[in-house]
Order: sequence, then structure tokens, then C-alpha cells
Amino acid sequence: MILAMTGSNPAILNEITAIVGPAYVATGAEAARWSQDWPGLTQWSPLAVVRPATTGEVAAVVRLANARRVPIVPVSGNTNLVKGTVADSALMLSLDRMSAIREIRAEARVAVVEAGVILATLHAAAAEQDLIFPLSFGARGSAMVGGVLSTNAGGSNVLRYGTTRDLCLGLEVVTPTGDVMNLMSALHKNNSGYDLRHLMIGAEGTLGIITAAVLKLFPRPKAYATAMVAVPSVGVALRLLNRLQDETGGAVEAFEYMPRSFLAALLQRFPQMRPPFEKAHDVNVLVELGARAPRDVTPDAAGAVPICAHLEAVLAGFYDEGLILDAVVAQSEAQRAEIWARREASAQILRVRKPVVENDIAVATDRMEELIARIESVSKALDPNIENTGVAHLGDGNLHYVGWPSREDPALCRAVQEAVEREVIALGGSFSAEHGIGLSKLPAMAEHKDPAALAMMRAIKAAVDPNGIMNPGKLIPDQ
Amino acid sequence: MILAMTGSNPAILNEITAIVGPAYVATGAEAARWSQDWPGLTQWSPLAVVRPATTGEVAAVVRLANARRVPIVPVSGNTNLVKGTVADSALMLSLDRMSAIREIRAEARVAVVEAGVILATLHAAAAEQDLIFPLSFGARGSAMVGGVLSTNAGGSNVLRYGTTRDLCLGLEVVTPTGDVMNLMSALHKNNSGYDLRHLMIGAEGTLGIITAAVLKLFPRPKAYATAMVAVPSVGVALRLLNRLQDETGGAVEAFEYMPRSFLAALLQRFPQMRPPFEKAHDVNVLVELGARAPRDVTPDAAGAVPICAHLEAVLAGFYDEGLILDAVVAQSEAQRAEIWARREASAQILRVRKPVVENDIAVATDRMEELIARIESVSKALDPNIENTGVAHLGDGNLHYVGWPSREDPALCRAVQEAVEREVIALGGSFSAEHGIGLSKLPAMAEHKDPAALAMMRAIKAAVDPNGIMNPGKLIPDQ
Repeated sequence: MILAMTGSNPAILNEITAIVGPAYVATGAEAARWSQDWPGLTQWSPLAVVRPATTGEVAAVVRLANARRVPIVPVSGNTNLVKGTVADSALMLSLDRMSAIREIRAEARVAVVEAGVILATLHAAAAEQDLIFPLSFGARGSAMVGGVLSTNAGGSNVLRYGTTRDLCLGLEVVTPTGDVMNLMSALHKNNSGYDLRHLMIGAEGTLGIITAAVLKLFPRPKAYATAMVAVPSVGVALRLLNRLQDETGGAVEAFEYMPRSFLAALLQRFPQMRPPFEKAHDVNVLVELGARAPRDVTPDAAGAVPICAHLEAVLAGFYDEGLILDAVVAQSEAQRAEIWARREASAQILRVRKPVVENDIAVATDRMEELIARIESVSKALDPNIENTGVAHLGDGNLHYVGWPSREDPALCRAVQEAVEREVIALGGSFSAEHGIGLSKLPAMAEHKDPAALAMMRAIKAAVDPNGIMNPGKLIPDQ
Repeated sequence: MILAMTGSNPAILNEITAIVGPAYVATGAEAARWSQDWPGLTQWSPLAVVRPATTGEVAAVVRLANARRVPIVPVSGNTNLVKGTVADSALMLSLDRMSAIREIRAEARVAVVEAGVILATLHAAAAEQDLIFPLSFGARGSAMVGGVLSTNAGGSNVLRYGTTRDLCLGLEVVTPTGDVMNLMSALHKNNSGYDLRHLMIGAEGTLGIITAAVLKLFPRPKAYATAMVAVPSVGVALRLLNRLQDETGGAVEAFEYMPRSFLAALLQRFPQMRPPFEKAHDVNVLVELGARAPRDVTPDAAGAVPICAHLEAVLAGFYDEGLILDAVVAQSEAQRAEIWARREASAQILRVRKPVVENDIAVATDRMEELIARIESVSKALDPNIENTGVAHLGDGNLHYVGWPSREDPALCRAVQEAVEREVIALGGSFSAEHGIGLSKLPAMAEHKDPAALAMMRAIKAAVDPNGIMNPGKLIPDQ
């Protein structure tokens, strides 16, 4: 449901200007940078973009919009990939001016931050205290905490640290009726009623606007051991993951899958990059261990860092069993950066070539090999010349599938997309792993989400946002 | 709000009997074991206790009760401490017959279990696969998974593994209208709408009945290092915790505080127990490290297990700095059991003596020392002869405060309770850490919970349970 705009719009803009000041209400050309999504695939025309500076200003704007029944679309870094900030004729509420890191309590290992803090800025602030905020992904230079929380962002370190919701202890939220809800605790145990924090995280702005948060920080790993490894199959890759976890007591920070097709596309797009191995292999994995304990970090008499020696020993064992085809262990920070650069170039490769079918999907790790085989089979049945590729956060079962059909045909693209989703569901997986629903995945929500869960989501949405002003039309499909 | 019973009760019992069979509807004396809470402090008279065997039977009973507006109080192990299962004139729905461990997938490290599985039974089943379900507490021999989830139980291992909600990947829930909601995924990433799993966990049965769950399992630590340590202050204890975490890379499994007063009461009640030290100390801590990596477990040439040597080295360093008054490291499994037995006797000590003021509270770890000092001060101001004691999960900031006032005076008890709660709130803490709200903590919810959060909880309750049949009167205070 998109609310109809009424003749009262100019009046509400005057009132909003009175709240935030004229410099912070953008319309027309001034609003251009908020009027399309990050990949540039979708454009829209917001009524205006309002940029409050405080939680009080956010609440005042929301109260006004709620009274006037004007829809609000919250936005922070605008790096969403599922059309979560499409805002035709709606008021966009940008959190970018609320960018204060209010406090870092190193002893308690928490950061208290506002919604407009850029993820990379938080990384830098934590590093000054020799701590990390472990969530990271390609868009870290522009994604902001508010959007990260509202979409429950994932990334490459989830297997060790969890998704965004696992890293959040407290929240401040402006409700759809313009009240400020203070859940800003820094507690590890707090059983005092429904967990509204987890309800708000991942709600994509449909239940309120996150304005601030208390986030967990962690000790910085004192050394990393990073390698590219080629193995005979995805199944063997998972055996390697489990072996590494067992041998190190759970020190695996990242375990990223790159198929031969991905590396070929990478080298075609960036000819200056070096291939990881002389010979191309089907199944390539980026492995990274992180060591925190001094005894895993302190070099031995020969100058070897124990965590690196450990990784090499596990790889040597697999090699002796004939389970490794090739491996390169980073010997310097520059080599580590080169290994990561291949993985992080994915956004510039996978979205460029058209036509394209993309899907962000998840299964339990022990079903990933079967999923990849089934995708190959069902997509080729629809288009024998389709090229399949992608990358995967293999350690947590999250595949970013990309298919390049052999012809421009929207019906074919849709058919491939839906066939892939059916296989995911058949394997007990999710049709949306970490990118969320927005507008893009509403059809999948309607088809695959448990009906009782959909009914409960609709009941909660109607109860919390009775006038339906918060990011209307997103996340929950119409009945 | 407690719903009034109507003349249709005998009729509904006939209908329920038709669903579950006559052997599984208990009334009168047969219902006695469900008619009081675990400490025996509160009694009630349920309309009947119904014991369905399947999710389908649960749904059929709930549909009937919803149609007839008969309140339902779900119950599993009935070890709740906050009057969460008081059920006067209500239908108690016991999950005890739904006790199947449906599946253990060792590779994916998940257990699929029904709500009536006893926690200790799950522990044993996981152990057969050399895995653990890490949640544990004194009542593990009778507490069941359904109640553990509904109350988001905590315990002694939260600092390493999180609370119950952190250990749950999927849920099956019968909603208040009798629909079955299937959220039984085993996924680590799943952003497909509101996180209804986290809404149900900790809702104390007021939003539906949890019938099954997918729970995380972990590799079994291959060796433990356990010690009792006496230190000069709670602040020093926290420095020791942080040092141990830094030195071991986060291997602390438990860090439990026992004050002198607790150990004195323990030895008075159980004279056959040995005191931990020759001399009594004010601040005593149970420390346990768990090692998973082979190199922390494999004995060296001299027969020493590295994780134990590690603990002894950290303790020796603190001793050299004058920060340890006394320490005993367990040299055998029997000595480890003796150390834990002191801690686990707490339930038999703290609740026995009357009059008693109890409070389950939490603050950030760096504020615990201040909290304990303030409690001493405000309680003594109300009753100069009150004796304060308790135990704490110090590693996660959770204090089980117990005060023994010098006279039987309900008004005094209430005044102490409220004074303690005010100090907790002033320090940014929670008036309910891990036991939940039930009926016992409704006054604290009304006084201290954020008003916007209370309003949202009421809106959600009304939307999800429109007839107010699910565990009415619990968790949310009347307006």
C-alpha cells in the first residue's frame, strides 16, 4: 500500500522546515542523491528529503507525518540492494547528520553510536582502542549504522561473530507514532518483556526509525593467517572448515567460496589482477584465521608465527590426503590484501554484465554442495547456455548466486530466479539470507514465507504503525 | 486481566478429552503436581491440566480455548521462579509428553527437539555425539526446552555462549488463534521479515506456545581448568577476568562470584562441605576455562595439560602483583565437582531462610562493584541489621541478590526490594536479568520499563492474541 499524497504537502514541508531548519529540507535536484538506489537500477521522486540532527527532531517530524498520514522512508547510507528505500512521493528521512559516536567504553567493550555513523568510521574509532567492531562488507565506506541494523546486515565474518543483531545490545527507536523508545542498555542479560530490539532489527524501517544503538566490540586479533586454497569439491571445502575449527578451537574468521567462473570473470574485468594459482581450479576458498591469545601470536625461535604455522600444518595434512589441489598462504600484509581484493571486487563484476539473475540465498552448510548442483541443473533446463557464477560466505551457508542468461528475456530471468528459490526452499533454506526483502523479494515472501508468520507480521505492523506511514509497501506483501 | 470462567467449562473439557484422550486431562488431585510453583510458595487451582502429544493436538486445544475464551497457561518443567505459571481457573497446557529429540545433525551442529525435552536429557544426547548444548543451571534435571525458551533462561555459561535466544536457530509455535507457525530453520542467515523467533523467546507464553525448536550445539571442550580464587575486591576480580580472556583468547566458560556471607551460610546448612580456603575471604570467585584446540589439551612431557598450566600462570602473575589472597586449582574431576557443588547449592540456601528479599538483577560488568556497595548502603539504611548475601554470574553482570531482614515485615521487604531496583536502574541496569517477569515483577515493569516499550508490548499482545487467552495477566502490567 502506497499512501496517496494530499493537498496538504506544501503545508507539511513548511512545518518540517520549522523543525529542522531550511538548510536540511531538500527537494527536486537537491534530493537527487537520495533519489536512486546504489546500483543505479531504480529511480524515484521523493516529496522531500529531511535531515534531522537529533532524536527529538526525528520524533517531531514523525509525529507530524503520522498526524498528516504522510509516508516516511528512512535512509542512511542508501547502499541497500533490494529497493528498500524506494520513496515515490514519500518523505525521505535521512539519518546522515546523526553521526556522533557518543561513547566508547573500552572496559565494557561497547560503543554507543548514532544511526548516521558510517561503518568504516566506527571501525576506525574501535581500532584506536585496540578493539574491533567485526561486521564488515564491501560497502563499509558508505553504509551507516541505522541501515546496517534495519537490514540486519551480514558479511564475511558472520561465522565467527554473528550477524548485526548478534552485535547489538541496545537501541533507541522513534516509533511510528513519534514516541522515543529507549532500549539503550549495555547488558548481556535483560529479561524484561518482549525483545523489541530484535523486532526492530531487520524490520527495514517498517516499524520505526532506529536513531542510536549500543554495539558490542571485541579484542582485535593480534595476527591473521590468510590463504587461498583450491580443493576438489565444496564438500571437501566444508571438511577443511570443520578441521580448521577443531584444530584451532574456532579461530576461523572468514571462509569464502569463489568458483572458477567467478575468477575468470574477475580477470577479464581487471586484467591487471594476478590469478591466485597458475592453473585454474573449480573450487577456490579464501581462508582466514584470527588469533587473539599471545601464545598463538608470538613468533617462535625461527620467527614463525604460531597461528600461521598452524594453518600451514592443517593444509599440509589435507595435501597429504590428496584433498588439496593448490594453496597459497599470505606471507605479508600486502599478500593478504591481494587475496581479499579478489573477493571484494565481486560487486563490480557480478552486477555489471546484463542480463543478470541474482539471488542472495542460504542453506545449512551441509547442504550447500547439493544446492549448487541443483541450481546448475534447473537453470540449464531453462536456458542451456546460461552461465552460472557467484560467491559464497561458505562458512555460514550464504550463496550470492549470479546467472547470466544467454538472451535478454525478463520472463526467462524470472523463471530462473523462481526455480532457484524453489530448490532453496526444498533444501530447508531461505530465499533471503542477508540483503532483506525491500520491494525486490515481495513475490518470494508471498510464495514461500510461512502463512502464519505472514499473518502475524501483518498484525504487528497494523498494531505498531496504525496509519501505515513507515516505509509502506516494503517487506510485507499485500494480501 | 484474568478472564472469567463461564458455565461452558464442563463442555470444553469434554471436547478437549476428545482431542487428547481421557488419560491426558487431569483435574482436582490429579492436577496437584502442576498446582504450585517450584519453591512451593504459591498454590493455585487450574480448571484442568491437558497434556497433548503432538503439535496438532496443541493447535486443536488452543483453537477450542480461543473460540470459548478460556485462558491457557503453558507449562513444561514448572521450575519458574517468578510465578509465571500461576493458573487459577485456567487450562494448563503441559508440554511434558512432547519429549522427542527429533534429530541431531552432528555435521551441522544442530538438535531438533520438542518442547518437553528435559534439559539434562538434551545434554546427554549431545554428549553421545561429542557435542554440548552449553546452557545449564541448577534445575537442568527438570526444566524443559519449552520453558527454557519461553523465559530465555541464562545460567553460568552465558559469558561464553550467550543466553537461550543466542542458542536457538528455529522455532515451531502454536499461535493464540491455534495456527501452527513453522520457523524451524537451521540457518545462520535468514533475513525474511520480522524476527518472530526472538519475539516468542522470552515472551513467557503470552504470545503463543513453543512446541519445538532447532538448537545450536558446540564441540565439547576437551579439557577444563577450574579454580577457586580469593581476591581483594570485585574490581580486582574483573581485572582477573579480562586478563584471563586476553591470555586465552576468550576461553573463560564461567566466572562466578560468591561472597563470604554466602560461603558462611553454605557451611552452616551443609556442615559436611569443606570450606574452599583455610581462612574466610570477602570476595571468592569460581573460574573455569574450557579448551577445545588439541594444543591446549595434549599433556606436555611433564604431564601438564596446557590449559591448566595457562590458568596457573595467570594466577601466579596476579599473586606476584599482590592481587590474589588465595587460590585452589582443581587437580581432578572430583575436585572440580566439589568446587561446583558449592556454587550449585545456592538454591537450597538462599531461599530457605525467612524473611527474605530476592532480586535477579543485571548491570554492565564494570558497574557491579558500585552496585554491590550501593545495595549494602540502601538496605542498611532501611534495616541496620539486614544481612546481605547472594551469588553472581560476574562474567555477564548478573547478581542474584538475597537479603535477610532482621524482622518479619512485608512492608520492609518491599521497601528493600524497591530500593535495590532503584540503584540498578540508576546504574543503567535491568530489574530482571534472567528469571523474567511472571506475576512477581509486574510492579517493577510498571515502574521502570520504558513507557513507549510498554505501549508497544501492549499493542503487540492485543494484535497477536486478540482474545487475551495466552497466559493472561503475566509479563505486561495492567494500564
